[in-house]
Parts: sequence; structure tokens; C-alpha cells
Amino acid sequence: MFYFAIDILGTIAFAISGVLVAMDKKLDLFGVFIIAFVTAVGGGTLRDMLIGNTPVAWMQNTTYVFVIIGTVAFTIVFRNYLKYFTKSLFLFDTIGIGLYTLVGIEKGLSIGLNPLVCIALGTMTASFGGVIRDILCNEIPVVFRKEIYATACILGGSSYFLLKELPINNTYAYIAAIIIVIVIRILAVVFKIALPNIYKDKT
Amino acid sequence: MFYFAIDILGTIAFAISGVLVAMDKKLDLFGVFIIAFVTAVGGGTLRDMLIGNTPVAWMQNTTYVFVIIGTVAFTIVFRNYLKYFTKSLFLFDTIGIGLYTLVGIEKGLSIGLNPLVCIALGTMTASFGGVIRDILCNEIPVVFRKEIYATACILGGSSYFLLKELPINNTYAYIAAIIIVIVIRILAVVFKIALPNIYKDKT
Amino acid sequence: MFYFAIDILGTIAFAISGVLVAMDKKLDLFGVFIIAFVTAVGGGTLRDMLIGNTPVAWMQNTTYVFVIIGTVAFTIVFRNYLKYFTKSLFLFDTIGIGLYTLVGIEKGLSIGLNPLVCIALGTMTASFGGVIRDILCNEIPVVFRKEIYATACILGGSSYFLLKELPINNTYAYIAAIIIVIVIRILAVVFKIALPNIYKDKT
Repeated sequence: MFYFAIDILGTIAFAISGVLVAMDKKLDLFGVFIIAFVTAVGGGTLRDMLIGNTPVAWMQNTTYVFVIIGTVAFTIVFRNYLKYFTKSLFLFDTIGIGLYTLVGIEKGLSIGLNPLVCIALGTMTASFGGVIRDILCNEIPVVFRKEIYATACILGGSSYFLLKELPINNTYAYIAAIIIVIVIRILAVVFKIALPNIYKDKT
Repeated sequence: MFYFAIDILGTIAFAISGVLVAMDKKLDLFGVFIIAFVTAVGGGTLRDMLIGNTPVAWMQNTTYVFVIIGTVAFTIVFRNYLKYFTKSLFLFDTIGIGLYTLVGIEKGLSIGLNPLVCIALGTMTASFGGVIRDILCNEIPVVFRKEIYATACILGGSSYFLLKELPINNTYAYIAAIIIVIVIRILAVVFKIALPNIYKDKT
Repeated sequence: MFYFAIDILGTIAFAISGVLVAMDKKLDLFGVFIIAFVTAVGGGTLRDMLIGNTPVAWMQNTTYVFVIIGTVAFTIVFRNYLKYFTKSLFLFDTIGIGLYTLVGIEKGLSIGLNPLVCIALGTMTASFGGVIRDILCNEIPVVFRKEIYATACILGGSSYFLLKELPINNTYAYIAAIIIVIVIRILAVVFKIALPNIYKDKT
């Protein structure tokens, strides 16, 4: 129930980010909905296609479809007020990527994949909805260009495998890893931490 | 046999639209062929990957591959005459999306998916070949920007589930739904009907 | 062992090409890594998704992941010296596409697909990593625009089915087909052979 609430909040935050990018590109109603949809479920869908978990997740639970339809309608109508909620949206998005990272990792573990591959699946679940959103909107994906985002997923996901080695309940390790993703992302944004610049010697 | 003829006409119309977009981008022969190919089979391929129906459809029936090769050759040679056939091409394309919508819906029903998901699959089968074409050609997909196109698939697809409730033969419901997609699309183009503008208050 | 060495050299050459395109777009470290990764494994991954061979290949053998991580680190540090090795890189890349074409064909044959479809799978394995790289970097895929590249895969792949008809050991046919891909590609580059120009009458 608790996870489900986080999941829905994350879906809403992702869908809103999709609506905003799509409206910025002046897409029509259908385009806005599709972009919101792929932003919200694209990462998990790609993960499911790569591991052969088909029909993919959103086909098996239509709750997400309705949540996204509602979010799109709400966001189009009230988008001029969204600027008062950027902090809440950032928080939902950040909690969402924390959860999705661990959901992806568990899916990988459940079919016996290597920890490294599981971390990749978790990061993909959390961040590739935004990648597909940006490709459909004809932009280079923002997650490839700036900010700590996927990196928070990678570090938090890695921490899960360390925490699992400790003599603690697996659920605690799971929740702790989610919190680590969230904290890294928040610290990175607050202190404007970016990945090391690899272009130094070119300037 | 009748369905097969529609299917081939639709494939030809889709492939021609791929050739024209690709030649507009000055792609080479290989690029033109690939764009024609993904335009024609991309929607069904994505559908099959999402539901786990692999190897995907075009790998199991190579008729499509030959039809597309022939269409590409024909279109390159005679493209200066295509302008006399825009109405026929529009008609083939429209009949094609009607059929593909229902083909996608039936695939979803055959594995027990929810009607909402089936309509999504049908719409995807009909319209995502063009989405992939536009992404490969570095354009924002035209189906996200203007015209009633996917919307015709969604409405016609929805009507199928209503028609199935009536005490009529399922084949009639199937054909009626195809015709509804076609009629909505034609009416939308003839009367220049677009989706409601969601940008009003921004102008 | 011999195939494995070729495979690793090909992976390195593909990953380097990914790093160079990504750095040209000023992506950050995560973006550069992802682009290198999809360039190296994207073709095989798409092939595996289309034929339902999941979890896809790189999830089942993490050697590639480590090779790509090492290649990315190496390329970022030493990229100013890469210009002295363009010929070696071209050679690795070319040997790589030869091998990958045949790997893809064999995967198709192993599940009983039609030769035409197998050649498509081989060509995709060899060339679609670069297609995905270019799409993620917001470029029209270079393989659709110039040079004999995919065409070498198609011709070499086709030759394999002819060679298999000869009364020779299958391994010889396999290796001969790889060499045919390599030779066509090298001849095309040395003699600047391109596909026939389909735009003549437009100039």
C-alpha cells in the first residue's frame, strides 16, 4: 500500500514532466498524452521488453493508464499554477526514481541476473522514460547532458547490494537504498554537484 | 483474401509515405528502404515486442518484405507521377489504418488483455510505423502534432467494443469498426477537423 | 577463442565510435557511457528483442559491460591520440561488422527463420547500434545517408547462403562470408564506392 502510493506519486510526477515538455513543443492533445504516457511508463516498458517480461507491466495493470489520463487533463487545465509546486514535483519525481530503481533491481534479481545488470535495469526503469520522452520530442536526452540523475540511481542501486550483505532484514536494505537514491539526488541539486567534467583539456 | 488485399494496399501506402519522407531527407538507397520498411511494419513490430509475440510478424511472413522492396523500387522510379495519385494513396493509407487498428485489437484480445489496452495496441499498430519513421528522420512525429489520425483509431477501436455487445455477428462488428475508423479519418480531413486546441490561453 | 577476440575488438571499436560521437555532442560522463554502450550492443539487443531471445545477450555475459567501461575510460583519457589510430579503428570496426553479420544470421537460422529474414537480422546486428547512437544524439543515422556499410553486410550475408550450398565445411562458409563483408567494406572505402544515386533527375 505504501509502495503503491509512492508509485502513483512518481507516475504523476513523471507524467507532468512529459506534459510540460510536450506542450513546450506545441504538440496536440494526442501527442501530449503519448509523451506523458511514455515518460511515466517508458523506462519500465523498455526493461520488461529487454528481460522478456511480456505483456509489459502497464498492460497488466490499467491503474497507471487512468492515473496518466487524469494527470494529463489536470496538468493541461492547471499548468499555469504548476510553478507554485515545482518543489513538490521535484520531490515526487525524486521519490519516484528511488522507488523505480529498486523495483527494476528486484525484477532483475527475480530472474537471476547479475548485480551489475540489475543496477542497469534499475537505472533504466527510473531514467529511460525521460530518455524516450526527449527522443520523441527531438531533443538530446537531458539525462545525458546535465545533473546527477541516473548517477543517483547507480549509486543507490549499488548500495542495495552492499546493504543486503549486512545482517539486516531485506526490507530495510530495500528502503535504505531508496532513501540513498533520494538523498544523493537532493544533495546533488541543492549543492549543484555535477559529474566530473570530461572536456577540461578542450577549452 | 479480402483482408489480405487490404493489408497489402495498406502496406504499399505506408511504404510509399516512408519513401517520400526519406527522399525528402536525401537518404541513400539503403536508408530509403529502411524508412519505408519501418513505416510499413514498425507499428505491428512494436506491438509484437510489447506483448511478447516473437519472432515479430514480418519475420514469419516474408510477403511484406517483397511487397515493400517492390514498392520502394516503384516509388523511386515513378515518384514524379505520384502527385496524380495523392487521393488514392490517402485512401489506401486510411483503409490501412482501419484494418491495422482492428488487427491490433484482436491480437490483444487473443491474449486476454483489457479493452483499454487492446485499443492502445490497435492505435499503435496503425500509427507507430509513422512515429518511428519520423524519429529516424529526425522530426517530431507528425501524428503528435496535427490532424485526426490516431484519434480515428481510438474512436473506431472503442466502437468495436460497443458493437460487440450488440446481438450481431462478430465479423460485422469488426468490419463496421474498420469502416468507422475510415469514415472519421475522411471526415476529419474533408472538414479539416482537428483535436481541441489546448494552447488557447497562451496566445 | 578466435571469434571471442574478434568480438571484443569489434566491441571496442564500436564503443570508441560511440564515445567520439557523444563527446562531439558535449554529453556528460553518463551520457557518453550510455552512447558507447548502445553503439556496441544496441544492434544485438534489438535483434534479441525482435526474435524473443530474452534476457538479451549482454545481460547474460557481463564481459561486454566491463570491456565497454574500460574502453570509455581509455577513450576519454587518450582521445587526443586516437587520430593516430584511425586506420586500426576502421579495421576493428570492419572486422566487427563482418563477425556480427554472421552472428546475427546464425541466431536467425537457429530458430528456423527464412534466409531473407536472417540476412536482415545479421545486418541489424552489425549496423543498428550506430543507428540508435545517432538517434540518441539527435542526428539522422549516418548509415542511412552515405557509404557502403549495411550494404556490405547484406551482400556478405547473402553470400553465406550461396557458400553453404557448396560441398564445403560450414565453418569455411562462415569465415568466407565474414571476409566477404570485410573486403566489400574496405573496397568501398578505398575506391569511394557509394550506392547508386537515386536523386539524379532532381538536380
